Amino acid sequence: MSTSFLIKAVTVVAIGLSSLGFSGLTQADDGKKYRWRLAETWGPNFPIFGEATKNMAKMVKEMSNGRLTIRIDSSNKHKSPLGIFDFVKTGQYQMGHSGSYYWKGKNFNTLFFTTVPFGMTAPEQYAWFYHGGGMELMQKVYSQYGILSFPGGNTGNQMGGWFKKEINSVEDLKGLKMRIPGFAGEVLARLGAKPTNIPAGELYTALERNTIDALEWVGPSLDLRMGFHKIAPYYYTGWHEPAAELQFMVNEKAYNSLPKDLQKILTVAMKAAAYDMYAQSYHESAMNLATLAKDYPNVKMRSFPKPVMNAILATNETLLKEFAAKDKMTAEILKSLSDYQQKARAWTNLSDRAYLDNFDSKVSVAAQ
Amino acid sequence: MSTSFLIKAVTVVAIGLSSLGFSGLTQADDGKKYRWRLAETWGPNFPIFGEATKNMAKMVKEMSNGRLTIRIDSSNKHKSPLGIFDFVKTGQYQMGHSGSYYWKGKNFNTLFFTTVPFGMTAPEQYAWFYHGGGMELMQKVYSQYGILSFPGGNTGNQMGGWFKKEINSVEDLKGLKMRIPGFAGEVLARLGAKPTNIPAGELYTALERNTIDALEWVGPSLDLRMGFHKIAPYYYTGWHEPAAELQFMVNEKAYNSLPKDLQKILTVAMKAAAYDMYAQSYHESAMNLATLAKDYPNVKMRSFPKPVMNAILATNETLLKEFAAKDKMTAEILKSLSDYQQKARAWTNLSDRAYLDNFDSKVSVAAQ
Repeated sequence: MSTSFLIKAVTVVAIGLSSLGFSGLTQADDGKKYRWRLAETWGPNFPIFGEATKNMAKMVKEMSNGRLTIRIDSSNKHKSPLGIFDFVKTGQYQMGHSGSYYWKGKNFNTLFFTTVPFGMTAPEQYAWFYHGGGMELMQKVYSQYGILSFPGGNTGNQMGGWFKKEINSVEDLKGLKMRIPGFAGEVLARLGAKPTNIPAGELYTALERNTIDALEWVGPSLDLRMGFHKIAPYYYTGWHEPAAELQFMVNEKAYNSLPKDLQKILTVAMKAAAYDMYAQSYHESAMNLATLAKDYPNVKMRSFPKPVMNAILATNETLLKEFAAKDKMTAEILKSLSDYQQKARAWTNLSDRAYLDNFDSKVSVAAQ
Repeated sequence: MSTSFLIKAVTVVAIGLSSLGFSGLTQADDGKKYRWRLAETWGPNFPIFGEATKNMAKMVKEMSNGRLTIRIDSSNKHKSPLGIFDFVKTGQYQMGHSGSYYWKGKNFNTLFFTTVPFGMTAPEQYAWFYHGGGMELMQKVYSQYGILSFPGGNTGNQMGGWFKKEINSVEDLKGLKMRIPGFAGEVLARLGAKPTNIPAGELYTALERNTIDALEWVGPSLDLRMGFHKIAPYYYTGWHEPAAELQFMVNEKAYNSLPKDLQKILTVAMKAAAYDMYAQSYHESAMNLATLAKDYPNVKMRSFPKPVMNAILATNETLLKEFAAKDKMTAEILKSLSDYQQKARAWTNLSDRAYLDNFDSKVSVAAQ
């Protein structure tokens, strides 16, 4: 320890005391160090998702000058990728990083704060969260568990998946064995598909050995390292997760125990890390798509034919209406999403969509 | 002053000293209070743009517990809306909030860090700033002035403007008197239009009295309060500012004088405030567009016909090539923008654009 360091410390004390009389300089600094732990659903060094938690924790540490530090435990450590909700609810961990739609078994209404099939794009959805009542509705759902929930990073529009055979009609969905979990799987099941869930580590082999005919994962940002493009030639555009937003969770009591300035540092860091992940996802998708197009020119990018897409869209609407009829809170959330999307989409169509249509083809166009 | 407050202060000192030996708890807190000033281009209470600076300053104040406060001077106070660059360069103000393209008279290359006609959308551009080399190029341009430049909030895609008459052919641009400043005005001038710049306060009257035939302002988020829809029935979609990003500027010496934790608090607050403004712009555009459609159903939304758009696009490319031939740094920036846009746009087309095309019309479609 250097002497200059000690001198600085003494200066701090002197100035701190003399300024207290008129300014309350340190009123939020209780002198304590807070050592928090965050449990994430992802394995260690998971790209993009895992970088979002590290980015958040680094911002918090640096902005608080070490007064609040957050240790990140990946799934190899806590052994319970889908135990994050309970970890945070009980306070075993002060924080979690996961996806809200994983908790639909605990409370069905958590489903709607990640993304909805045929729902909003990422910019539309951020506008809804922060200006259209989304944050308030999310808190209404989570408050009964003593959990605060925040946006945790957007993947951007997810691809419809990798298919071994082309889908030309609604008939082609019948009997289709596809890894597609959750709500989207239910939609396809109503159209005759056989949705399944398979752990990430077994996906490649399952697709290779025809245990499944198709699968969805994320998009170019994360799909390429999985190798699916080597065994399934059709890559379909998305409909089921137009803007999957991950989730930061904070134990409410732990949050309330923080001084006001650390609360603010934490919330701003989570918000910035969420937006940052959207920018990073966009970047990684663009770069990996370019690699895919260059190294695997035989991969065929497709959109589902209109009759198929319309059948899926209609089934999705039927399902949502059934859910809304069962539960008041579901109805309230779906009405908010639907009303907001209608207005936000009108703007998207008049702005970015009309703009993109200035360019003659869907092939990329550069500024010069 | 309450006694509990004094007791807390003493606690701070005690813990502060005892923890110094192993942690350096207060090493970045020099005990000083920093009182900064920010000059903004906008007038007082300017919607959205002015809210971005207030949002940033509030985050900084709360996260730093008052150690760094930023007073905002609007143009009514400093009297020089386009003097922000010099204010920050000389250190008269530690910070500024403006638009990088306003400084093209000082350094032509500042032009490219706001937006470029036919350039990237906001999500593409954020990916470029933070992952595609944009921040580094911007700093290369600004470092010679002792200024640090940061994204300062995105307006989203700006509309092409309000027109009294429909534009049906390139011929219709000839002699068209339009308020459209900057680079986009130069593009239209080459096609025979007569671009002018007119102060905001005189725009309505100029349009009403046919001093001009058309004007561009921002988009539904800010246009409605100007009243143009009452006197110009055609509202055209955009091409010239696909993602205008405002700018925070910081005097480099002032920045370096801050303790490390306050530097981080400042940069994270600027970043979050910039992203936040994009979400707010999206929201305000969506809400105001809905109002416009409801209260003024006679306003006609149009895109320029393909031959007109293609003529503007070709002229824009010619102009950019001329600029790139004149200056090495310009060429470097344009190459970076162009290469990145090509990759990012391929992803946009495969993701959000293909997704939006799932919906049969450009009219808004709700989730249920």
